[in-house]
Amino acid sequence: MIESYPSKVLQLQPIGHVQNQVQPGQDAIWERIDSRIVIDEEWADGLDGLEEFSHVIVIFWLDRPQDRESPLKVHPEARRDMPLVGVFATRSPQRPNPLALTTVKLLAREGNVLHVRGLDAFDATPVLDIKPYLTRGDQRTRVRVPKWLLRLWEEQDRDTNR
Amino acid sequence: MIESYPSKVLQLQPIGHVQNQVQPGQDAIWERIDSRIVIDEEWADGLDGLEEFSHVIVIFWLDRPQDRESPLKVHPEARRDMPLVGVFATRSPQRPNPLALTTVKLLAREGNVLHVRGLDAFDATPVLDIKPYLTRGDQRTRVRVPKWLLRLWEEQDRDTNR
Repeated sequence: MIESYPSKVLQLQPIGHVQNQVQPGQDAIWERIDSRIVIDEEWADGLDGLEEFSHVIVIFWLDRPQDRESPLKVHPEARRDMPLVGVFATRSPQRPNPLALTTVKLLAREGNVLHVRGLDAFDATPVLDIKPYLTRGDQRTRVRVPKWLLRLWEEQDRDTNR
Repeated sequence: MIESYPSKVLQLQPIGHVQNQVQPGQDAIWERIDSRIVIDEEWADGLDGLEEFSHVIVIFWLDRPQDRESPLKVHPEARRDMPLVGVFATRSPQRPNPLALTTVKLLAREGNVLHVRGLDAFDATPVLDIKPYLTRGDQRTRVRVPKWLLRLWEEQDRDTNR
């Protein structure tokens, strides 16, 4: 029943932050960007054993969207030639709750610092959680995505290799 | 620099909730559980186009952990025969920020309701975000996980098929 869950404000705190060379507003080929995730000292022991995983999922806070408004429908990558789809059918940073998640390659862990590749977060972005990427559950097969997305990726590949 | 990010409390709101047959404290073989995710009417249009994806990632709020404390180190699945590892090296529900994420099979969308399979959330759990599962980014290859996790999964398989 919709009445049975509390309609309250939920609170989070950053557990650390991102360090890299990409400033807000800058363009980047994120797959190639190496970042440091600096976890606050009080949580550092919580990383023990993470180095046995090749990939981790980073949940971070989209603290610098270009626009505070969250439209319900968006053109992916703000491209007018892409269909107008619901925000939940995209990874747009402008969403009702400004949460992002990205799977990254874990290069190394040094104490409270994770060295990762492929994190699409600007320098100083607050980090909320780190989870191991699992071959069961996170790694899916027989996955279907829309045609517009395949076309978008193809065009981005062409631009990147130009 | 660690001083450069605001150490403030971040706020979220539920966008909907889970409906299924599993009550808190109950055991379930989650892979086989079908759930409805009921999105609040104000956000329903944000789901448009999601039906073209076979899988979606659900971010939800762990509102009913058995214990409010979040230990830094845990035995996976509370099993003493498993190594003591950092909470960020596990998917334990007791974590500094009570965020969970699960990739589920999207069976159907009907207006503001998503029918999904494999969501490991109890009935009435608040939902924070829905994201499409992407063949690029979310679907990783050459993934390594620790030996203890492979052993845990093998034993769980045996128990399930018993």
